[in-house]
Amino acid sequence: MVKKKQMKEEKMSDTKKSDTKYVYFFGDETTEGDASMKNELGGKGANLAEMSRLGLPVPAGFTITTDCCNAYFAANSHFPPSLEADVNAALARVEAKMGRKYGDPENPLLVSCRSGARQSMPGMMDTVLNIGLSTSTIPGLIKKTNNERFVWDSYRRLIMMYADVVMEKAEGIEPFDGKGIRKILDEILDQYKYIKDYKSDTELNADDLKVLAGAFKRKIQEILGAEFPDDPMKQLWGGIGAVFKSWMGTKAVSYRRIEGIPETWGTAVNVQTMVFGNMGDTSATGVAFTRNPATGENLFFGEWLINAQGEDVVAGIRTPLPLNNETKTDQNKDLVSMEESMPETYRELVDIRNKLEQHYTDMLDIEFTIEESKLYMLQCRVGKRGGKAAVNMALDMMDEGLIDDKTAVLRVAPNQVLEFLLPIIEPKIESRQSVLLKGLPAGPGAATGEIFFTAQDAVQAIRLGKKVILVREETSPEDVEGMRAANGILTARGGMTSHAALVARGWGKSCIVGADGMIVDSINKTMKVGEKILREGDVLTINGSKGVVYEGDLPLVAPTASGDYARFLRFMSLVDKYRTMGVRANADNPADAQKAREFGAEGIGLFRTEHMFYGEGSAKPLFLLRKMILCTTQADRISVLKELFPFMKKDIKETMLAMDGFPVTIRLLDPPLHEFVPHSALGRQELSKALNIAEDEVRKRVDALQENNPMMGHRGVRLSVTYPEVTEYQALAIFESAAELIKDGKDIIPEIMVPITCDIRELRLAKDLIEKAYQKTLIRMELTPKQFHYKIGTMIEIPRAALLADRMAEIAEFFSFGTNDLTQLTFGFSRDDIGNFMSAYLDQRILNADPFQTIDRDGVGALIEMATKKGRTTRPALKVGICGEQGGDPASVEFCFSQGLTYVSCSPFRVPVARVASAQAAIKAMDK
Amino acid sequence: MVKKKQMKEEKMSDTKKSDTKYVYFFGDETTEGDASMKNELGGKGANLAEMSRLGLPVPAGFTITTDCCNAYFAANSHFPPSLEADVNAALARVEAKMGRKYGDPENPLLVSCRSGARQSMPGMMDTVLNIGLSTSTIPGLIKKTNNERFVWDSYRRLIMMYADVVMEKAEGIEPFDGKGIRKILDEILDQYKYIKDYKSDTELNADDLKVLAGAFKRKIQEILGAEFPDDPMKQLWGGIGAVFKSWMGTKAVSYRRIEGIPETWGTAVNVQTMVFGNMGDTSATGVAFTRNPATGENLFFGEWLINAQGEDVVAGIRTPLPLNNETKTDQNKDLVSMEESMPETYRELVDIRNKLEQHYTDMLDIEFTIEESKLYMLQCRVGKRGGKAAVNMALDMMDEGLIDDKTAVLRVAPNQVLEFLLPIIEPKIESRQSVLLKGLPAGPGAATGEIFFTAQDAVQAIRLGKKVILVREETSPEDVEGMRAANGILTARGGMTSHAALVARGWGKSCIVGADGMIVDSINKTMKVGEKILREGDVLTINGSKGVVYEGDLPLVAPTASGDYARFLRFMSLVDKYRTMGVRANADNPADAQKAREFGAEGIGLFRTEHMFYGEGSAKPLFLLRKMILCTTQADRISVLKELFPFMKKDIKETMLAMDGFPVTIRLLDPPLHEFVPHSALGRQELSKALNIAEDEVRKRVDALQENNPMMGHRGVRLSVTYPEVTEYQALAIFESAAELIKDGKDIIPEIMVPITCDIRELRLAKDLIEKAYQKTLIRMELTPKQFHYKIGTMIEIPRAALLADRMAEIAEFFSFGTNDLTQLTFGFSRDDIGNFMSAYLDQRILNADPFQTIDRDGVGALIEMATKKGRTTRPALKVGICGEQGGDPASVEFCFSQGLTYVSCSPFRVPVARVASAQAAIKAMDK
Repeated sequence: MVKKKQMKEEKMSDTKKSDTKYVYFFGDETTEGDASMKNELGGKGANLAEMSRLGLPVPAGFTITTDCCNAYFAANSHFPPSLEADVNAALARVEAKMGRKYGDPENPLLVSCRSGARQSMPGMMDTVLNIGLSTSTIPGLIKKTNNERFVWDSYRRLIMMYADVVMEKAEGIEPFDGKGIRKILDEILDQYKYIKDYKSDTELNADDLKVLAGAFKRKIQEILGAEFPDDPMKQLWGGIGAVFKSWMGTKAVSYRRIEGIPETWGTAVNVQTMVFGNMGDTSATGVAFTRNPATGENLFFGEWLINAQGEDVVAGIRTPLPLNNETKTDQNKDLVSMEESMPETYRELVDIRNKLEQHYTDMLDIEFTIEESKLYMLQCRVGKRGGKAAVNMALDMMDEGLIDDKTAVLRVAPNQVLEFLLPIIEPKIESRQSVLLKGLPAGPGAATGEIFFTAQDAVQAIRLGKKVILVREETSPEDVEGMRAANGILTARGGMTSHAALVARGWGKSCIVGADGMIVDSINKTMKVGEKILREGDVLTINGSKGVVYEGDLPLVAPTASGDYARFLRFMSLVDKYRTMGVRANADNPADAQKAREFGAEGIGLFRTEHMFYGEGSAKPLFLLRKMILCTTQADRISVLKELFPFMKKDIKETMLAMDGFPVTIRLLDPPLHEFVPHSALGRQELSKALNIAEDEVRKRVDALQENNPMMGHRGVRLSVTYPEVTEYQALAIFESAAELIKDGKDIIPEIMVPITCDIRELRLAKDLIEKAYQKTLIRMELTPKQFHYKIGTMIEIPRAALLADRMAEIAEFFSFGTNDLTQLTFGFSRDDIGNFMSAYLDQRILNADPFQTIDRDGVGALIEMATKKGRTTRPALKVGICGEQGGDPASVEFCFSQGLTYVSCSPFRVPVARVASAQAAIKAMDK
Repeated sequence: MVKKKQMKEEKMSDTKKSDTKYVYFFGDETTEGDASMKNELGGKGANLAEMSRLGLPVPAGFTITTDCCNAYFAANSHFPPSLEADVNAALARVEAKMGRKYGDPENPLLVSCRSGARQSMPGMMDTVLNIGLSTSTIPGLIKKTNNERFVWDSYRRLIMMYADVVMEKAEGIEPFDGKGIRKILDEILDQYKYIKDYKSDTELNADDLKVLAGAFKRKIQEILGAEFPDDPMKQLWGGIGAVFKSWMGTKAVSYRRIEGIPETWGTAVNVQTMVFGNMGDTSATGVAFTRNPATGENLFFGEWLINAQGEDVVAGIRTPLPLNNETKTDQNKDLVSMEESMPETYRELVDIRNKLEQHYTDMLDIEFTIEESKLYMLQCRVGKRGGKAAVNMALDMMDEGLIDDKTAVLRVAPNQVLEFLLPIIEPKIESRQSVLLKGLPAGPGAATGEIFFTAQDAVQAIRLGKKVILVREETSPEDVEGMRAANGILTARGGMTSHAALVARGWGKSCIVGADGMIVDSINKTMKVGEKILREGDVLTINGSKGVVYEGDLPLVAPTASGDYARFLRFMSLVDKYRTMGVRANADNPADAQKAREFGAEGIGLFRTEHMFYGEGSAKPLFLLRKMILCTTQADRISVLKELFPFMKKDIKETMLAMDGFPVTIRLLDPPLHEFVPHSALGRQELSKALNIAEDEVRKRVDALQENNPMMGHRGVRLSVTYPEVTEYQALAIFESAAELIKDGKDIIPEIMVPITCDIRELRLAKDLIEKAYQKTLIRMELTPKQFHYKIGTMIEIPRAALLADRMAEIAEFFSFGTNDLTQLTFGFSRDDIGNFMSAYLDQRILNADPFQTIDRDGVGALIEMATKKGRTTRPALKVGICGEQGGDPASVEFCFSQGLTYVSCSPFRVPVARVASAQAAIKAMDK
């Protein structure tokens, strides 16, 4: 009971009362909708209306609104009572405009039923063409068109489509014997052609098609237990209902999940007069982009086919022809262009193209049909484009005066700028490759190299000058050195937030995870894909932006070298004109800091001090850390800390130097200590020998560190409470580094960040230790507090810290939301363990998005809002940032902007993405 | 900088301006304070003032306020400027009253300096007696008392005390060579007695004491580098400062932490005229309770000593005498009572006793001194008492008309009622035992038995009719059967919320955890305490209320058999008269439900369905569960669920029956599945055989279930999402059980509770599955919805659920706060892993209390408040309860009442505790 009420209420919020207008006519100056009505009419419907209003040749029709779709589902798949009369009235207007009559035996009107959601969902929903053809209308149409074959061909197409879409899928009928009705009818067609010894469909004559139509109808009755409707009105309503139902189809539902489209948007249905590009050699059909969608070049670009229907262009059975001469390529330079073949209609089309671009001020994707030399526009929508094309078009259109600079900034999806930064596979070559394996696109860009199955092997191969793809079942911190060395990473397990994905993304390293089509055997150093076995040294190329793996060494194209890069820089400076929120980088070493700075980072939002214990050059510090961890007295720990001190200082100082002039936020030791001790017997043996402690004792001490839920264990500031000396020496390393640089004339203000705090008293304890180290450093380095400033702040990553943020801000001069851990604790989701259920949560739409990728606004967002507001009540000038993974996610950046955050911090490669997202948020807020 | 400002602000909230009155005189009708001024004057000072006002013989003196203490620390251990003049003025009033003069060589006044906080902190702070004795005042006092030995003895006592308290401790001087000055002076005394061949202090004559005083002063100069002050005023200020400083002493700080006393309360200093019980046989000193503090009996009860000072009674060097004849015992029946020896003074004391009880309307703890036949009252305060005594006194005083019934309810600390329910060690025998080992009092009551080191051994021994104490390093779910069988549990590791503690408390089983003085070797079946080795079969007795372990088989006393139990029942019915909030029990089986009902539970707040897989009788269901877990298809799982079904139903149905007429809240499966599969190779082998699945395959499937942070893993409602069939069969078992009982005429309304929800969509999914099972059951059992109701609700234990509680309440008809998990996630504290840092957090006062024992009001409490309010905006009639461990903690119960919760639910044995706490909260709220 409750549930139904609930669903209804949800819907009501997005729908209107039942006396709403559900049907909108289009086709001439009396057109009722326009391009602004996408929410009601869907993208296709709104643009058909807009083109009609512009006076373009659009076959008349009408759009049934998305509200009607919602009303339909709310009423348990029944049409609203008012709809029938409205459809009839609209149909009468179409008939009047087109001079034909629906269902009329003499002069019949045929229509199509097409879906059209607010946002394009290509191929995800269903379409029925040629509706209105029946035993009663066929003779009239034959007479009128004088083309019997065309009519019977249209009829058999209607039957096939209708049986598939309306009678089977929309009714939820399970495919018979594993085969859908469409496939069964196709088999009949093939058998018939085989019997007749026809090579292609074109050989079928009118009689053949008539025979086939009869056979199809019998088969449908047999398989589906229902008759193909011969009543044109019944066909029409079946088509409308089927399009609505396809909104809830499996494909559409899963597409919406991926794209984050709410179910409540619904789809519109466009019922439109059929026009035919397949009525002979003066007929044709085509698709075009008003500019090149791959490069952004300002050239009219498209493909067309003579005597064909739209689906023939898309299906790829016939080779499409180039639209004009200037866009001919080496491959199609000998084919006839529309410009050559139908110069007059082509000029008409170019006029329409210009008119549309001027009107929409954007690159458009259009569909047209020429019926016996008459041009009809069937679709126009803003065209999809690659990242480089998006930037180029935005700048070009701005230069052309078509759009202003704010609009130019908004034209590029933030993630699209990544294309300028990453090596890619030579596009033409990639398009010809067959895919070996697919996985999740965890680290963008392409990489090629020999495969190696262990981190050690990878490192060794790199030393021998080889290119390496590291292939692992999944990665762990012990693999980090190998991961850093490798050109690309490929794992069989793990999701977008797995260890491999996080590490790779931070480095901008090409990485594919969760490629579950392969079986990795790291003992025998082989991987199996289907029946194929690949061995160490075999060469793969991976496209980490797409999550696709190819065999062999495909050529890569470098990013910055190209002339495009200058365009990127110009675009980014435009972006920064409007950006108000800061963008920093998460970087743990001088190289990353340098890279981040190149990409426009205005400081470091997260320097992880523990980084020095991972990866290259970490052997000695890691050894010392382990030695310290196994100490049993404070005095012993302090003596090891003194040995560690120069290592601690080195990375910090060099990173500060690389960021000279910008703030560097250094986080105190965060992970639990057991992360650093060897858990294998062998590792313990080595450590026992190196430290001269009995192996049994080492085992005991290591075991004592074990935790059941390490994420919530003895880590972060909790280590400051139990081992204050560790915090003190970290602070000393930070302050000495800063002081030395200050004495060298550098502009350094270290920001020390305390992790995992849940109470002001923890923060006070850490502050006391840090302040003591600061005072010591002032004396030791002979500096005054005026010469040397620092800030202390805290991560807000424990829900309690967010709840008590007003208290935290009494001490903290800045907050940084650690949205990884905050999300873990707010949801009670262990990021390492969501693999077993997260896909079910997304599939079943319990969650709209993975909260580890995009900030959960309802829960985590509520805590962020609360903490920011509360913190600023105590300390109005409180700096507030975010340094979780989501800091580089555009939707999350927009949320951070809306909450008034001072900056976002993300991995260096995502800095440009965050800059764009931040600028767009600012522009959108201006326009409100 | 920030820190200091912060500290000051904190103090300011509890202190007043510096022009406040800091000194209050007492001693006659001009007394300035009274009993209501405990916050300012401390308990001792307020009661001295009150007794003075009542006209009782109190030696005159004055109290320096707690505000002054705070001002003293705020000013970096300096007295407020105004204090000196005020002290001098008060001293003049004392001199006038007593007819002596401070520092006067002829007729000197001596004073004591004693601490006195708002709440008694026995022995935690310091006292200095005999202040004012100096080389200048000694002759006059000798002349006046005509007792040279007494004066020199008083002087050497002053020197010892002063050196210890004022010159060493208050100055923060580290003990020399590991020995304090007190110990060093004691050694000199002992050496002197050895040389003189004296057996006791009484043999020391005046000259001896004079020599010793000189030696003491020289030693003090040598060790402490300072002179014992000979100026009486210097002595006085030293004493006052030392008492203040003792507020920050180690002992006081740690006592405050345990008792939850805020540092900002401060201590008062009582400066009072010395009177002497050691001036001969007409002098005496004593302590008494106005009623028997152990039993509550209405008899004047106390001890006294002739010719002695107060500390002699307490020190236990001389055997104290009984106060009167009616309270003589077998042990002291031949000793002379005060009633016999000083009948007149005794009658005076009895009059005072009656006057005080009438005035304070409570049992009091008093101290008195008789100086040459004159009676002086030195202290009176409300007396501490045991649980049974508290109940008896409350009922008696109510019957006597001394207090009303509300006051009677408030007179008993909630935990005190537990004494009526648990077996205890025969108190007289226990008092004579020496302690073997101490640990945390995890499960109250006493137990005795042979020690066994594995659950299996324990179970086997019980079967042989033995009494068993199960001794483990720590316990895990695999030990549960042994734990249930054992009479008591003793672990070396774990805190108050460890597995052993939780399980034991739920059963009211005696348990001591974290007894880290022992080393357990479960392989060799021994435990080592110091050098002592105990073996399997050795007998121990444990007092789980105190956390103390004794060797041997001490006799236990059973609770309900005694006549006391009727008093308990009478008190509890009084409690229920004022209780408004419900109290339920957490119970997983019919026996516990029955017990809970006996203890007054009004339903079950938490029935854990997974309980059937633990402990006795669980072998078969556990086997089936494991079989189900290893299934790979839904069909297989369903077929195993059908086998499991009768087991699921049995416990549920019997528990519902035991609670007939009361609601039973049944929680769906909560733990992650890997908790139920064997992790040992042997266990896997057995399972492999039993299930006829290859061992390697079993290992693989078990491994696939492993999680890094199982607390935040694939559990609770997340299992409903991935394995809906499990939820469906659980719901069917609940509904069928209920339906069968309803058909038998029982009054059953099952409440189904969904665990670990974080989003309404999870809850909706679970609700759909449950509703489906309900509809199926209605049909199958031929019942109508009118005949058979159920409720659906959710745990609120994930922060996000609390944040989105308004949405959750759209579906949930009730909330139950799972404060264990909610605390874990709000703090980011893994309950299993806090052992490594929680004690540091409490020691360093980062936390005032373990949040797993008492609800953290600031953080977790804020979420509870938010969720309750938000939930009731959507559903005003929302039932809200709590079923975490804290549901039986009195402070938490009071908090729950303040938040308007419908009920608290706790382990059966804590139900009476929660009833008392709930009633007291209601009464306190009435009085506001």
